[in-house]
Parts: sequence; C-alpha cells; structure tokens
Amino acid sequence: MPNDDIYRKQTFGQKTGFGRRPILLVVDFVNGFTDPEVFGGGNIAEAVAATVPLLAFFRAQGLPVGFTRIVYADDGSDCGIWCEKVPRLRELTEAAHQSQVVDALAPRPGELVIRKTQASAFFGTHLAGVLLSKGVDTIVMAGCTTSGCVRASAIDAMSSNFRLVVASDCVGDRALGPHEANLFDIGQKYGDLLSSRAIMDEIAAVA
Amino acid sequence: MPNDDIYRKQTFGQKTGFGRRPILLVVDFVNGFTDPEVFGGGNIAEAVAATVPLLAFFRAQGLPVGFTRIVYADDGSDCGIWCEKVPRLRELTEAAHQSQVVDALAPRPGELVIRKTQASAFFGTHLAGVLLSKGVDTIVMAGCTTSGCVRASAIDAMSSNFRLVVASDCVGDRALGPHEANLFDIGQKYGDLLSSRAIMDEIAAVA
Amino acid sequence: MPNDDIYRKQTFGQKTGFGRRPILLVVDFVNGFTDPEVFGGGNIAEAVAATVPLLAFFRAQGLPVGFTRIVYADDGSDCGIWCEKVPRLRELTEAAHQSQVVDALAPRPGELVIRKTQASAFFGTHLAGVLLSKGVDTIVMAGCTTSGCVRASAIDAMSSNFRLVVASDCVGDRALGPHEANLFDIGQKYGDLLSSRAIMDEIAAVA
Amino acid sequence: MPNDDIYRKQTFGQKTGFGRRPILLVVDFVNGFTDPEVFGGGNIAEAVAATVPLLAFFRAQGLPVGFTRIVYADDGSDCGIWCEKVPRLRELTEAAHQSQVVDALAPRPGELVIRKTQASAFFGTHLAGVLLSKGVDTIVMAGCTTSGCVRASAIDAMSSNFRLVVASDCVGDRALGPHEANLFDIGQKYGDLLSSRAIMDEIAAVA
Repeated sequence: MPNDDIYRKQTFGQKTGFGRRPILLVVDFVNGFTDPEVFGGGNIAEAVAATVPLLAFFRAQGLPVGFTRIVYADDGSDCGIWCEKVPRLRELTEAAHQSQVVDALAPRPGELVIRKTQASAFFGTHLAGVLLSKGVDTIVMAGCTTSGCVRASAIDAMSSNFRLVVASDCVGDRALGPHEANLFDIGQKYGDLLSSRAIMDEIAAVA
Repeated sequence: MPNDDIYRKQTFGQKTGFGRRPILLVVDFVNGFTDPEVFGGGNIAEAVAATVPLLAFFRAQGLPVGFTRIVYADDGSDCGIWCEKVPRLRELTEAAHQSQVVDALAPRPGELVIRKTQASAFFGTHLAGVLLSKGVDTIVMAGCTTSGCVRASAIDAMSSNFRLVVASDCVGDRALGPHEANLFDIGQKYGDLLSSRAIMDEIAAVA
Repeated sequence: MPNDDIYRKQTFGQKTGFGRRPILLVVDFVNGFTDPEVFGGGNIAEAVAATVPLLAFFRAQGLPVGFTRIVYADDGSDCGIWCEKVPRLRELTEAAHQSQVVDALAPRPGELVIRKTQASAFFGTHLAGVLLSKGVDTIVMAGCTTSGCVRASAIDAMSSNFRLVVASDCVGDRALGPHEANLFDIGQKYGDLLSSRAIMDEIAAVA
Repeated sequence: MPNDDIYRKQTFGQKTGFGRRPILLVVDFVNGFTDPEVFGGGNIAEAVAATVPLLAFFRAQGLPVGFTRIVYADDGSDCGIWCEKVPRLRELTEAAHQSQVVDALAPRPGELVIRKTQASAFFGTHLAGVLLSKGVDTIVMAGCTTSGCVRASAIDAMSSNFRLVVASDCVGDRALGPHEANLFDIGQKYGDLLSSRAIMDEIAAVA
C-alpha cells in the first residue's frame, strides 16, 4: 500500500456516498472464475461466500440486482484481440459450464444478466441504459477479479456518473497483490470502499 | 510483483504485437500532472523526458500522433461525480496552465488533441472514430498516470480492439507502487510492455 | 404523411410522457444553421423564434438547459468521413461565427454546452453522463435540423433510455419534406411530439 | 422527394465510396419484420429476396457478413423506454420465432450475429470493436426497416467513421413514404445509395 500523503494532498479519495437508488452488480462470479484450473484462485471463493448475504439483503429490500457474464459466440466469430491476449477466454460461451453464474448466487427470473465480451460491464453492452431506465444512480459492486473486470467496471461506473461503492470483502482476485493494489486505486479514484456489513447497515438506516 | 505462475497457467500475458499502422497516444502529459503541487510527482518527469525522442521518432516516420487533456467547462457545468471524488480536477479548464500539454511535447498543427472529462481517452470522446478514419489499428501509449488515465485508456484501447503497446519508460505515476502494479496488470491483460527503444527498433525494422 | 393504420396495429406511437426531471436540449441552433447560404433555410428561423420563450420558461423554472454545437479542430485533425460526405462541415471550428449559438438563445454561464463532431448530441460526447449526474431523466428537444442532428439525437436519447419530448414548433429543417417525414418517424418510434405551449403547460402543472 | 438544390448548394450528398474491406451487414431481417401481422409489411419481402444474391456474393468472395437481431430477456428485465413506446418489441426474445433471422438468409457458423435492444446495430453492442478486429472499414447495409433500424445503424456507421453503402433494393419498410424519405436522408448525409447489382460489380472489379 503506498504512502498516501500525496494522494491526500492532491485531494484524491473523497467519499462520494450513496444516491437515491442502488443496484447490486455482481461482476463475473461464474464457475470459470472460481475454479483455479480455469481463471480462479486466490480469495475469490471467500468473496463469493461474502456476497451471499449481501445478495439476500438486496432481494429482501426489493432493490435491483444484476449479474455479468463474459460470453463469446460458440464459433468465436466475435472474439477480438482480448482473446489473443488471453486465449482461454474463448472457452466462455453461452452454454459452457465455465460461464454460468455460480449456484450460490444464481440469478432469479426478472433479475438482469448482462452478457459482455470485454472486461468492463459497460463496454459494448446496454447496462448504462438499463440502469437509467430503472432509476438507479448508485452501483454497489461485488465480483471478480478485482484487478480485471471489477476494476474496469469501476472506472466505467464512475465515468458514466454513477456513484460507486465497492463491497471490499465481496471482490476477489486470483492473486492478492493485484487485489490489494486495485482496491487502493479504486478507493482513491473511483468509488468508496465499504464492507458488505457497512453497506447493509447504511442502506437499512435509510430505508 | 506477484508470482505470475498462475497467470501463465491461465494463459494471460500473450504478446499481441503491432498491426499495420500505429499511433503514438500521449495521455495527459500536461503541466498539472508534472507538478507535484497539483497532480504530479513520482517518476512522471522522467517519463516525459523519455517520451521526447519517441515523439520525435513518430513525427520523423510520418506516423500519426495524438494527445489527450482533461478539460472541464470554466463554469463547472460538466463536472460530474469524478470531481466530487477528486475536487481539484475542476481546475483543469480550457485555458488553465495546468491543463496545457507540457512544452517539451507540445502538439503541432494537424496533430490530434482530444479533450476528455474522464480517465479514459476513449470515454465520452470521439477518439475511436478518429483512429478508425486514419486507418490506425495499433496504439503506442505514453503518458500519466500509469494507475489512472493510462490504465483506463489501456483497458478501452483493448476493449475497442486496437492493439496496444505501452512504452514502459514513457509512462509515470505520482507513486511507484501503483505504477508498478498497473504495469503488471496491463502487461498480463491489455497490451504489450516494451521500452521506447524497442518500440522504435521494431517500427523502424518494418518501415 | 403515411397512412398510420399499420403503425397503430403494430403498437407504434405510444405516449411515453415526462419523468421526474427534464432538461431542455437545444441542438445546433448556431449561426451556420440559420443562414441559408451555409446550412440553414426552410423553417429554421421560425423554430429559433419559437424556442426563445421555451428557453425562458426552463430558466425561470430553474430547470437545466443544454446546447450543442458541431466543432472540428481548426486544422481538421479530427475530421472523419462525415466531412467527406458534407465538406462544408469542416468550417465549423471553435471560433468560427458559423458555429456559435445564435444570439437569441445564447447560453449563460453555468449552462451546459456540448461540442460534438457527429450528428447525434450523444455520439462521442459526455452528454449522457452529465445528464445522469444532474438527475435528468427526460429530454425536451429543440433545434435543427429535424432530419439531421435532431433525428440522430432523438434516436440516441431513446436508446440511452431518456424519455424524449420533441417540441414540434421548435425544430426546423432546410427543407419541409424531410422535416415532416422525420417528425412522423420520431413520433412513432422515439418520443412524444408536443407544441412548446403544451410542454410549458404540462411542466407548470406539475411544478 | 424534396427539391435537392439546397442540398447540393450546401455540399451534401458527396460520394464516399468503398474502402479496403467491406462487410455485408444484414439488419433485422427476422421473421417478425417480414410478417405484416407483427412488424412487417410494405416492401420488406422484396428487400429480403434481393438480399439473397448479395449475401451469396459476399460469401463467395470470402468477405465477412454479419446479422443483427433485436433480443430482449425472456423476463423483460432489460426492456427500457423503447418497449413503452412500441410494446410489442418485448416479444422479441432469444427463442421466439419472430426474432430469428429469416430462413432465406440464415447465418452460417462463423458468421457474426449481433443481439441488440435498440434501433442501431451499434448502440450498446460490441459491433464496432468486432469490425475493427476484422479490419473492416466499409459497411454494405441491407435490412429493415429503412426508417427504423437501418436509418439508426446508418447514422452510427457514419458516426463511427465506417464508409457506408446502402443497398437500395435490399432495404425495406412497412410503409413506402418513410422508406423513400429515409433513403433520401441517408443518401444526402450518411452514405452512398447503390443497387445490389452495382455493389457486386464494383467489388468484383476491384477483387
């Protein structure tokens, strides 16, 4: 963790808080990212476990929830350069076991599932528009990996002008160094870092 | 630097190389990001210095170059949540000294300058379209900060399906930990890391 | 005007109404589009005149207003294929008289002005994000041309999931056939068509 | 058709031609848009028939082809305001007969199929990136409706800086007035209008 004096002096890291209506966005918690033989490892399994009560809380509160999955065409017709950089990505097809949301967090009918082909949940998807139509102005983010799709989605959440709160115990990565480094960057630049407990307390206090 | 065995096993970090036509994209090397009293510090000054010969090389080869600047309206009318997170960003207005490209790398007439309000050079800008119209398929990236606007632009370069080569000595950050951590992430996931010397050699060999 | 039985049978043309917070978006009412020797003509002057009281109403209500201008770099470095299709577009540069908002509707400090290089107010701009940060969910649209930048912006407003109300007497075109044809398309597919009088009445009734 | 003197004087309607590598993009030729009881009618059936030899030509030349379909989630979770404007749109789900590409033009393995929820083939999709990764710089467009998804996709093709050639006999609409009006607008502002015969001749001459 870098000495953050310079960040403070340069006004980074202010809290941006919650708006009127949050969504829980669960990024890429699919079978292939919990399995260390595919794209998983590190603290991802713990992050999935910590997300279970957070998801239950959002559902109980009647708040919207959404999920993302990486999905490429079966025939690879929409694979681009990212599949050259990380060739196993092309295994993530519509019906593949690896690209299904993990059972512990399975989406229910009526819950949003966004298919994407890039790291960010927003890039080349209709997520921003769907959130606008639901009156969402705040994204509570869980998922993996912290240094990959969570980081990319966090940047785009801020860039789209959503308020972002990352559930710090509900995001995970295959390696802990990048996990910590990216949490630091996100907290300084793109969103608030709060435990899932603190998030539930804050939302419950308002409701 | 994390042990990268798991990255190798999971097929991260393949080289994606150069395409037919590269542009040199100089991200946010403006006065405010070289001044430690504003947003600068760390190794940013060295990165600017290393970019001088790289920029001269692209110009000598007749290859396109582009620059980005963060520019908000003088009256703050287009500031969003990022300016809540990092309040001093709103000082970066059209005429402010802080938001001018540094003299050592000053754009020449006919060279592309992209104004942006978010971290990524692509978000809410017409950069992708301009690159397409110039036949560019490869982005050689210099600039700052490695953990901020370079990282965000790198993700979007890959997501847009440009080939990305980050000039590792021509990117800098206010703090070295985030600099290193983000170079690692970029190299594994979004682009090739090459020294400016190696980039010039490779382009010269083809030309 | 086509027989619209088939549109009705196929469920086109439902009213979508107003949301919680509207903005008045004035598209491309700049000097060059009111001058028939440049890009103007037809009923554009009347549409500008009809927009004057609508703009005054939004300001009096304390509701947000925004303006768009087409602006290309002085050196043409960001001109793309649209400037091949319509070469005089490249005259619309930052300081050119042709690309300034008309005096009758001049933006005031604190009012949003979006520079764009394509037909849509949203394409390659940060408009969608700025609207989100202002809590805007409804766009009242004035401007020109109905068949050009208004039509393109209308499609993107709907596609972004904003509610769209086009002020039918506040949009104009260099030729009346395209004006009418595009109003018909917009009304069937992308937004409500209301007179500026009806818009002011409806907003006043709620306020 | 408007008198187009003013368009000529104002420099509209220049030819932009073909680039290096065209794709044939077939927009929304699905069962629901050929059936007058759903969203079809007018000259759409003829346009489908005229597209058959054009598609065969692209395949024979080894040139890329792509298709678009409107697809909403079965549970309507990603329906937005467009589904309020045109309620029957929500019938277009993944497995619905209405949202399958017509048999005469059925996609083959390896051919790109883009799912979209808005009018434009580009909005909220990864089409632009996929085209870039295939080296495509020119879009030959067929599909329906001329005044709906074709028009919207045409604007975005130009705005993304692809060269656009609309196959004038291969686009259709439920009503002929809007069909003609939108062809006029496209030809003046966004792309070339050529018959499928002329397109094949021009490509064959270069190949």
